[in-house]
Amino acid sequence: GAIGMMDGLHPADIAEIYDELNTEEAKFLYLLLDIDTAADVLAELEEDDRDRFLKVLPIEVIAKQFIHRMDSDDAADVIGGMSEEQQEEILSHIGDIEQAGDIVDLLHYDEDTAGGLMAKELVMVNENWTVLTCLRELSRQAEDIDEIYYVYVVDDDGILKGTLSLKIMILSPTSAKISNIYQPDVMSVHTDEPDEEVARIMEKYDLVAIPVIDSIGRLMGRITIDDVVDVIRDEAEKDYQMASGLTEDVESSDSVWIQTRARLPWLLIGLMGGLISAFVISRHEGDLGNYTAMAFFIPLITAMGGNVGVQSAAIIVQGLASNSLGFESTISRLLRELMGAFVNGIICSGLVFIVNLFLVGHSFSLTISVSVALFSVIIFASIFGTLIPLTLHKMKIDPALATGPFVTTLNDIVGLFIYLSIGAYFLSFI
Amino acid sequence: GAIGMMDGLHPADIAEIYDELNTEEAKFLYLLLDIDTAADVLAELEEDDRDRFLKVLPIEVIAKQFIHRMDSDDAADVIGGMSEEQQEEILSHIGDIEQAGDIVDLLHYDEDTAGGLMAKELVMVNENWTVLTCLRELSRQAEDIDEIYYVYVVDDDGILKGTLSLKIMILSPTSAKISNIYQPDVMSVHTDEPDEEVARIMEKYDLVAIPVIDSIGRLMGRITIDDVVDVIRDEAEKDYQMASGLTEDVESSDSVWIQTRARLPWLLIGLMGGLISAFVISRHEGDLGNYTAMAFFIPLITAMGGNVGVQSAAIIVQGLASNSLGFESTISRLLRELMGAFVNGIICSGLVFIVNLFLVGHSFSLTISVSVALFSVIIFASIFGTLIPLTLHKMKIDPALATGPFVTTLNDIVGLFIYLSIGAYFLSFI
Ligand SMILES: [Mg+2]
Ligand SMILES: [Mg+2]
Ligand SMILES: [Mg+2]
Ligand SMILES: [Mg+2]
Ligand SMILES: [Mg+2]
Ligand SMILES: [Mg+2]
Ligand SMILES: [Mg+2]
Ligand SMILES: [Mg+2]
Ligand SMILES: [Mg+2]
Ligand SMILES: [Mg+2]
Ligand SMILES: [Mg+2]
Ligand SMILES: [Mg+2]
Ligand SMILES: [Mg+2]
Repeated sequence: GAIGMMDGLHPADIAEIYDELNTEEAKFLYLLLDIDTAADVLAELEEDDRDRFLKVLPIEVIAKQFIHRMDSDDAADVIGGMSEEQQEEILSHIGDIEQAGDIVDLLHYDEDTAGGLMAKELVMVNENWTVLTCLRELSRQAEDIDEIYYVYVVDDDGILKGTLSLKIMILSPTSAKISNIYQPDVMSVHTDEPDEEVARIMEKYDLVAIPVIDSIGRLMGRITIDDVVDVIRDEAEKDYQMASGLTEDVESSDSVWIQTRARLPWLLIGLMGGLISAFVISRHEGDLGNYTAMAFFIPLITAMGGNVGVQSAAIIVQGLASNSLGFESTISRLLRELMGAFVNGIICSGLVFIVNLFLVGHSFSLTISVSVALFSVIIFASIFGTLIPLTLHKMKIDPALATGPFVTTLNDIVGLFIYLSIGAYFLSFI
Repeated sequence: GAIGMMDGLHPADIAEIYDELNTEEAKFLYLLLDIDTAADVLAELEEDDRDRFLKVLPIEVIAKQFIHRMDSDDAADVIGGMSEEQQEEILSHIGDIEQAGDIVDLLHYDEDTAGGLMAKELVMVNENWTVLTCLRELSRQAEDIDEIYYVYVVDDDGILKGTLSLKIMILSPTSAKISNIYQPDVMSVHTDEPDEEVARIMEKYDLVAIPVIDSIGRLMGRITIDDVVDVIRDEAEKDYQMASGLTEDVESSDSVWIQTRARLPWLLIGLMGGLISAFVISRHEGDLGNYTAMAFFIPLITAMGGNVGVQSAAIIVQGLASNSLGFESTISRLLRELMGAFVNGIICSGLVFIVNLFLVGHSFSLTISVSVALFSVIIFASIFGTLIPLTLHKMKIDPALATGPFVTTLNDIVGLFIYLSIGAYFLSFI
């Protein structure tokens, strides 16, 4: 039956199936898995599914059957999500003092830093050893480790000196001294380095693992690329969610309540913006009464302002995310942005001018109002869209905020103000 | 001077500096680099910088100094971007027949597939060998390879049988037969597998490298995680760009012309939408003339429709991108989406009702028109935002299109139509 089906599956596949089940079904199937597979599945589950799940299992089972079999980074993540009492109870059930110590060490780090990403499992050799000693140590240390990517070389104080490639070790005579064959240039990160920066470094230098050091250079752990890939994916999704007006990670399969919670805050901001827009327009009720056709172009002005603003902001947000903004000053960036806005503004307002005057046959004063306003709004939105994310970034607020409904809403209000003022001015000549 | 400064830098850092220079400056500095570093820098440059650069270097220099020193995947990417004549000329200058053959093989594959991502450099052993033969073969094969992640095991026909971990090889006696110690379960991908699917597999199973096979299972190459990280980043950026109304990868430092080209198409779509909106409103010129206050809420209706539509679409697009939509049918997904829209719609239109009737003191008929229209538009936009990306996906068009100005523009038009129709109906009772 169900278990036979799951027999040959990878833990990541089983975790995916669990995503589709309710807690009772999941628990039933879970308890039928062999213990090693079950621990791997637990590490693969998404955080919310895992928490839901841990609530129905006895603490002792969690400690002895699951935590015990996990890598220290995954174990710390699982335990880190629990209350202090639960954490202590779990730790007290872990027999292996070294493992418990590793987990306690890892719990100190902020989850958004290198310390929060690293695992304690690594292969470390002393620079004074020979290849033969190393090979012997390796068989001992490597027992708990799935895959060795790099062997780290330290001195007697545990200070990271470099790496030793397995390839070179295999190709060297067994009597060779490590200090003569290791690679001294090694990229490393400090435990406090933000996770996005770790991702940027590993991505840029094509690293599979990176060692993590403390303030005096001692080797504290290593970060592997699979966990960094998750950081990259998460950061990209977060930016995308902000641009789309979602305040949290939400999936199509999440409950109505979770979805509403993620969506309502932005909708309320949009709502407030819409009511302020209504107020701005109501100040020109007289003009609109005299000249109803002015209302026709309200959506054009707000839509174009929104689109231009989001485009400008997105270019800056992506530049900040990939660290590719370079050394250019804000002023020169803004100037280039303005030139682009000028070109797009001329093209768009020119086209609208032709359509309004010649194709539709609107009056000259309305035509000129719409085109001048459209041009102004495009210029304004591009300045606004460039400056907002740069300012947010300087204030250490996520600049991706600027690509969401935030910029569109502010743009709508200012755009309307510009349009109606210009319109009132030109139409007063009629 | 400048060269001394670059001496200790990683090729990826030098490539980043080049990004900031003009072609002449870059060429000057480039010719001063040592040959190995220069080849690495060339592989690290962004595609447009690299092409600009290759134009100023003689073909023979490119072939003998650069291509010769590159991994086959990077070499194929560089050559793949050239004209057929240039390709042939370069290939004729490569002395190493095996390398030239590898590159020609790789040029056959579509760049968006596993074949386009893979490199020919890999370590391969025969299942009938012993550990001793393997170690000897390894020293020979590994010469050209930076880092060995997995040793692949094949049979006499070159069919992929499994992997051999370096760890296990180091820990096994030298007389052991490979067929007794290798791991037979190996994840692999077919040369035609789309790159996004390769990324999904490596991400899910935490792989550092994955072997690529042909239709009969022969080992053709391997894909490493660093190149897949680039695919993940690119895909995420593409979705974000579409959501922000950019048609191509554009950076803050790109020329005004490139930026305009990336932005204008979406602006023109928005422009057309705005003109159609103007037409929709003009059909209600009479109603607006009688009841100017109706115009006040046009931005509210369009903004809310746009926000809800983009939220709904983004949830689907992310689900499709991460393959997490699961087995739920479109109907049940839509029903859940509708429930959420119902909740948000009630809250938003309720709030607007209270503000309009009690705080601002608008007439009852205007108040009810705005709230009913707002509710209808929220419901409509959520259906629309859910169905459009699912439909695009079925039509094999990138669903991320649906989160950009496209949905907002269509929403604006339909939303206005709904609002004005409802308004005309209620206000006719005055
Ligand atoms: Mg983070
Ligand atoms: Mg952690
Ligand atoms: Mg890279
Ligand atoms: Mg690379
Ligand atoms: Mg890990
Ligand atoms: Mg970010
Ligand atoms: Mg692709
Ligand atoms: Mg390629
Ligand atoms: Mg993973
Ligand atoms: Mg993992
Ligand atoms: Mg590569
Ligand atoms: Mg995509
Ligand atoms: Mg809008």
